[in-house]
Amino acid sequence: MLVLSSPSGAGKSTIARNLLENDKGFELSVSVTTRPRRSSEIDGVHYHFRSRREFDNLRANDELLEWAEVHGNFYATPREPAERAMNEGRDMLFDIDWQGAEQLREKMQGDIVSVFILPPSMRELKVRLQRRAEDDAETISRRLANARNEIEHWRDYDYVVINRDLDRAYQQVLSIVAAERLRRDRSLGLFDYVTRLLDEQVD
Amino acid sequence: MLVLSSPSGAGKSTIARNLLENDKGFELSVSVTTRPRRSSEIDGVHYHFRSRREFDNLRANDELLEWAEVHGNFYATPREPAERAMNEGRDMLFDIDWQGAEQLREKMQGDIVSVFILPPSMRELKVRLQRRAEDDAETISRRLANARNEIEHWRDYDYVVINRDLDRAYQQVLSIVAAERLRRDRSLGLFDYVTRLLDEQVD
Repeated sequence: MLVLSSPSGAGKSTIARNLLENDKGFELSVSVTTRPRRSSEIDGVHYHFRSRREFDNLRANDELLEWAEVHGNFYATPREPAERAMNEGRDMLFDIDWQGAEQLREKMQGDIVSVFILPPSMRELKVRLQRRAEDDAETISRRLANARNEIEHWRDYDYVVINRDLDRAYQQVLSIVAAERLRRDRSLGLFDYVTRLLDEQVD
Repeated sequence: MLVLSSPSGAGKSTIARNLLENDKGFELSVSVTTRPRRSSEIDGVHYHFRSRREFDNLRANDELLEWAEVHGNFYATPREPAERAMNEGRDMLFDIDWQGAEQLREKMQGDIVSVFILPPSMRELKVRLQRRAEDDAETISRRLANARNEIEHWRDYDYVVINRDLDRAYQQVLSIVAAERLRRDRSLGLFDYVTRLLDEQVD
């Protein structure tokens, strides 16, 4: 379970997309949200867009692993795909904020690796948000305030990557994924491998 | 502090040499030994070759961080270079066996990352030892028995790399090094970076 968090505009979504395209071992956890769909977004791909009433029903039926309210909109991680991936030993990628990450760590305990992506500067973050041209000035201002709040939680993460250069930041995330898969306590099948090795007669 | 261990012939020394050549952030901890120098070895580079009496003096003067006896020869890590590197925040590479690694973990507590390198098979390990052509049949047989003993300690390590292909194994060690440097609790200067980021006024 790989958790990527960052303030919006810091490059998290691009890194997540690259990872999903190049590493077929990963599946994306698609979040549920009550916020309106942007013109560039597809229901079921970027988010599961739901009404407030549908969201409340999911929550009432314990179908959400974690949820949070941000600026009056609700965001959540559906429980079933995540639990299925974990049971089947597949890697799942979570593109969620610090509140989601915190709840996920509580619920899934143990096998979670979390990476926080920092922008090179607040000024650059603002430029990136403006360049995206999807939000008005007021929304950008609110997103910047929210970014500060998000950044304050960097200490809760296992790894921190500074996104000065997108290629380099992506390579760093790849290194983290590769290294975590080599951790002795995460290498399924290693015990059998060593047992076979020690049983091999060559003398 | 990066510890690389493996049975001899599994490729550890080649990987260590590549790492030292390509990453100037690393310094090698040169071990002390009482075993005879091989024709290909240089005193002070591959080992500090010392007599048994000199070795006993180092030990008596608490100048050794860890030591072990293997087949009647003594091996040890000098204390001073390792402590100096740690105090100056430089990365040090230790090419030592499981006994050395265990003592190092006890003495240096905390900031040690350990990687165990496994051979693809015992048969291949034997071939590699024979190809080296430095040892007679009896020595090779003893090294193979020792390899089994070493491999049994794979569980003590943070990471396990299987050296089926040297390039790939080296890349995996590079990923481990890169990822460990991105760990939030190891990134010196990150606290200052985030403080500056949060202080930056852009609105």
